[in-house]
Amino acid sequence: MKIDGVSYRSVWVDPEDGWSVRIFDQTRLPWAVEILRLTDETEVAQAIRSMQVRGAPLIGAVAAYGVALALRTDASAARLRQAVAMLGGTRPTAINLRWALERMAAALDNLPDEQRVARAYAEAAAICDDDAETCRLIGMHGLPLLEEVASRKDRVNLLTHCNAGWIATVDWGTALAPIYMAHDAGIPVHVWVDETRPRNQGAALTAWELGRHGVPHTVIADNAGGHLMQHGQVDLCIVGTDRVTRQGDAANKIGTYLKALAARDNGVPFWVALPHSTLDTSVSDGVREIPIEERSGSEVTDLTGRTVDGRIETIRVAAEGSAAANPAFDVTPARLVTGLITERGRCAASEAGLAALYPERFRSEAP
Amino acid sequence: MKIDGVSYRSVWVDPEDGWSVRIFDQTRLPWAVEILRLTDETEVAQAIRSMQVRGAPLIGAVAAYGVALALRTDASAARLRQAVAMLGGTRPTAINLRWALERMAAALDNLPDEQRVARAYAEAAAICDDDAETCRLIGMHGLPLLEEVASRKDRVNLLTHCNAGWIATVDWGTALAPIYMAHDAGIPVHVWVDETRPRNQGAALTAWELGRHGVPHTVIADNAGGHLMQHGQVDLCIVGTDRVTRQGDAANKIGTYLKALAARDNGVPFWVALPHSTLDTSVSDGVREIPIEERSGSEVTDLTGRTVDGRIETIRVAAEGSAAANPAFDVTPARLVTGLITERGRCAASEAGLAALYPERFRSEAP
Repeated sequence: MKIDGVSYRSVWVDPEDGWSVRIFDQTRLPWAVEILRLTDETEVAQAIRSMQVRGAPLIGAVAAYGVALALRTDASAARLRQAVAMLGGTRPTAINLRWALERMAAALDNLPDEQRVARAYAEAAAICDDDAETCRLIGMHGLPLLEEVASRKDRVNLLTHCNAGWIATVDWGTALAPIYMAHDAGIPVHVWVDETRPRNQGAALTAWELGRHGVPHTVIADNAGGHLMQHGQVDLCIVGTDRVTRQGDAANKIGTYLKALAARDNGVPFWVALPHSTLDTSVSDGVREIPIEERSGSEVTDLTGRTVDGRIETIRVAAEGSAAANPAFDVTPARLVTGLITERGRCAASEAGLAALYPERFRSEAP
Repeated sequence: MKIDGVSYRSVWVDPEDGWSVRIFDQTRLPWAVEILRLTDETEVAQAIRSMQVRGAPLIGAVAAYGVALALRTDASAARLRQAVAMLGGTRPTAINLRWALERMAAALDNLPDEQRVARAYAEAAAICDDDAETCRLIGMHGLPLLEEVASRKDRVNLLTHCNAGWIATVDWGTALAPIYMAHDAGIPVHVWVDETRPRNQGAALTAWELGRHGVPHTVIADNAGGHLMQHGQVDLCIVGTDRVTRQGDAANKIGTYLKALAARDNGVPFWVALPHSTLDTSVSDGVREIPIEERSGSEVTDLTGRTVDGRIETIRVAAEGSAAANPAFDVTPARLVTGLITERGRCAASEAGLAALYPERFRSEAP
């Protein structure tokens, strides 16, 4: 996708040195477009933990490059296993991280040491290409949902939560891919952007992405979506996800479940967009089985932004002495999900729906 | 209630001059406890619009004193009507404002001019005493709900949204009154405090109130309540309200509806606490009939708080150029409300339930 006319992916190998890994520092967006250089697996792990890179598909892609960086100084099988284990422990909820690391391990484990580095870079690049193409196809398969609304209304009002745009993936995004495609095809779309407390990925990243691409949008407090749905202001919800279980439960940024409840209560379709790498057929009941990351309470009590005269400041917004809790994800049960949008097409959020699209995953990976 | 051991109400007549009206500037809390002096109805209207005073019951009480202040310079019936109309237009959703102003008009309209000022102060004081006693009784009638949970659990985990504490009323609060009474009675309570974006009344006011009173509590993002309920972390929700219709629909701070949906989905009791002055028997379908205030989008995009070195700063948190919408309330349909807690007891959120507690309101005020 483009920033001010220049095409970017969200992660790439530095073309100057041919080995270091470049990412946008997403903790600096939307105030500054800063490109970081990652040179070893420790820096990659820190970038993931601190959410300089975030978004389930992007985390997987960057972690894959983390393996390649780790092998540069020691290409042994032991080092490979160590790097995979360390990187796999950075964040617990998104399954794409485990998927990418298992793919790297499978590709590299049985190779001679001297072939591992080159193959690691190639495999990480393949993961990135796979993700970009997957997201493009998600856009294609989601587009008809917007076209259907546009066939009977002047404007398609969407609601999304958190950021599942191109900056959360290698390119295109998941939930935002169909929206970009509809906008580019001349369909009048308007996106209600949940600000997505506590880290404001909606107000900071989704609004930034949509704004840079020229897509009409309005930021709202996370509290507002139910009211908008009660009053017919939302035609369609599309969100991303960090892990979908074999029965179609979807973990996503905290608060997604509340929007799904409101969508159900008001007859608004609620779709979840995901690449194959987000499907975890090893778990079934998402509420009981998916580990939910607990992050620091300071992400709730303290906020960073820009003053009117351009200074970046961090302020406390909660009463002094009050503690905060910060579960980072919740699980939306499949019963609240209208359907799933994947690179292979749309399906019901159910084992039958997923098995029809991914038969090989359901044959080989019994729970 | 007390701040650091000193008893306060949320509005009072200055004891020095005997006529000006004192309030806490709630836009300065929790960073500073600043007491404002209001000297005419224009200052009162501005304090209400800017939310220096907020909370449905408190708005009514302060507006009543606004009438008294207006009459000090011109005690005519024309001035009375003008002040009532002007103050009534300050905020649209909370019905307590209209209730208090109608009570003032009824008490003052037929009096000789020379008796109006004294009677206006007396009536406003009566409204305040009524509210404080009403809230105390709401606490008494809500307390058994907490005692019931405490009879089978070590700790009572409550969730509340926005601020319906003593600072939102003249004293005691509505939703928080039963919690204060339970805590004072030695019942181990813990309150999940929704931060309540965009104006953070939960993180700033409820957390401050509870902290000053020593009630254990934890601030959470508004997005987190559903997840906590899915995992058995909430025994009981209690919220305040700005208007309850004759069929039991409840307008309250934006986002309340989402929590009611989550409570229903997880079998968590969801109670709404209200004084008689919040009941509006002239409307029935709250979603269709209650006017919802639209406030400035800047309340969503910009936030004020305190830096680590003590400066108060306002920062923008949304991407530059992105607009925001800010509906300030939503309506929770009666079907999602377990019951209502009033000064006359608890009842079902239904016309039958309300009519049993307030028969005189349902006889005299047909819709």
